[in-house]
Amino acid sequence: MKGKVFLVGAGPGDPDLLTLKALRLLKTADAVLYDDLVAPEILHLVSPEALLRNVGKRSGSKKITQTEINFLMISLTRAGMSVVRLKSGDPLIFGRGGEEIEAMCDAAIECEVVPGVTAALGAAAAAQIPLTHRHISHALTFVSGHASEENNVLNWRGLAESGATLAIYMPGQDYAEISSRLAEAGLGPDTPCAIIAAASRPDQQIQLTTVAELASICPLPTPALLLVGEVVRLARSAQLSGHDFLTLVGRDSATGNLEEIV
Amino acid sequence: MKGKVFLVGAGPGDPDLLTLKALRLLKTADAVLYDDLVAPEILHLVSPEALLRNVGKRSGSKKITQTEINFLMISLTRAGMSVVRLKSGDPLIFGRGGEEIEAMCDAAIECEVVPGVTAALGAAAAAQIPLTHRHISHALTFVSGHASEENNVLNWRGLAESGATLAIYMPGQDYAEISSRLAEAGLGPDTPCAIIAAASRPDQQIQLTTVAELASICPLPTPALLLVGEVVRLARSAQLSGHDFLTLVGRDSATGNLEEIV
Repeated sequence: MKGKVFLVGAGPGDPDLLTLKALRLLKTADAVLYDDLVAPEILHLVSPEALLRNVGKRSGSKKITQTEINFLMISLTRAGMSVVRLKSGDPLIFGRGGEEIEAMCDAAIECEVVPGVTAALGAAAAAQIPLTHRHISHALTFVSGHASEENNVLNWRGLAESGATLAIYMPGQDYAEISSRLAEAGLGPDTPCAIIAAASRPDQQIQLTTVAELASICPLPTPALLLVGEVVRLARSAQLSGHDFLTLVGRDSATGNLEEIV
Repeated sequence: MKGKVFLVGAGPGDPDLLTLKALRLLKTADAVLYDDLVAPEILHLVSPEALLRNVGKRSGSKKITQTEINFLMISLTRAGMSVVRLKSGDPLIFGRGGEEIEAMCDAAIECEVVPGVTAALGAAAAAQIPLTHRHISHALTFVSGHASEENNVLNWRGLAESGATLAIYMPGQDYAEISSRLAEAGLGPDTPCAIIAAASRPDQQIQLTTVAELASICPLPTPALLLVGEVVRLARSAQLSGHDFLTLVGRDSATGNLEEIV
């Protein structure tokens, strides 16, 4: 039997936002290697006979390296297994999916990518924020808020000047740092922002703010996503059902100002 | 009975890339209003008892306006129906989803957004192109290639300077126009590009090229998506099964050059 690797997107968290293909693969795979951020409810869908292993960075005391993950994928596949490499969101956005495809290709292992609903789309749906709008924003940019040497080469000023809505993945817990980075890039202090934590999950939280006020906000739990741009003014109340801890903030329809409504 | 509107993303085309929630809503909705680009195989999943209507721009000789679509959504919901407004990809990216949410909100109609796999993710999965890569590209921007007065306000130079991978939706049939727009924005003539037509569908086509060569390429059928940036060099052969008309172009592993391999 010939093994194969499937790089599968698990979507933003709600198992209902898995694709049909992802669900079928989870139910039939011989092995599932998953990241930290994949919701437990999704892991429950995996067949009890399958090998299920956390290869996330927080998986126990010993940090697993990308080389070790690749080795595991190659070994299991060579043993004839159907291996699902499960990543939260979509596998080709901020997930080292490219490096894993390359490793499989070098090892002559068949590999298929199954796209998923990326976090920004789950977050936007939750807050009902259109990511593009023909009168407001004609582009959307995904960036990582993770401060690293590599990320510093990114031209934030170019992004700010482009007028694109920004979806900042992994904003971390230091919102003051992101706030000043956005201000330095040229975004005005009143530019609206939304932080969406645990989008599509029962403990989802949404908080509306501005670039200036972001600096002093109490960080929301991870995983969170930060949306920045004029479209955020259009945020509408998310569905309350099942979201007991929802912090809802809305737009005053008369003044257009952001204000707390719950 | 109280009606409700669901803005649902249908994904890139393959019914297998619908979310579980989208499938359930399609099977149970009283009415489904869909756009031109939604695949017929997906419409077959709608209950035979449901009202099914094309509200796309190419729906017959008489062009339907956004106001008319909003009116239809409001009328059906007020009649107590569960209404699915089905859009290809994700409802909040280049789909006027924001305008429809606003219209429902103004009419005091309950509205829920169900995110979907947006076209760029389907295209990237098909060509196995990582949209971000920690050594190559730290950002990803979605823009519309549709030339319009509104779109011209977009700062393409800012986008090019940001170093983000570009995913250009609706590149149209005039690739020469897009090629010169990219060149004017400052992208080098050798910047790699991939055009992915009908991603995830049986008639999927993938063509690799460069910003300069794009100008003279025979346009692929719509719907298509154009990916631009250094990450495109990492494109890997897509699965051939079921893709009879696939045009495959690959990377020469020795020279790193793009070359036709099929």
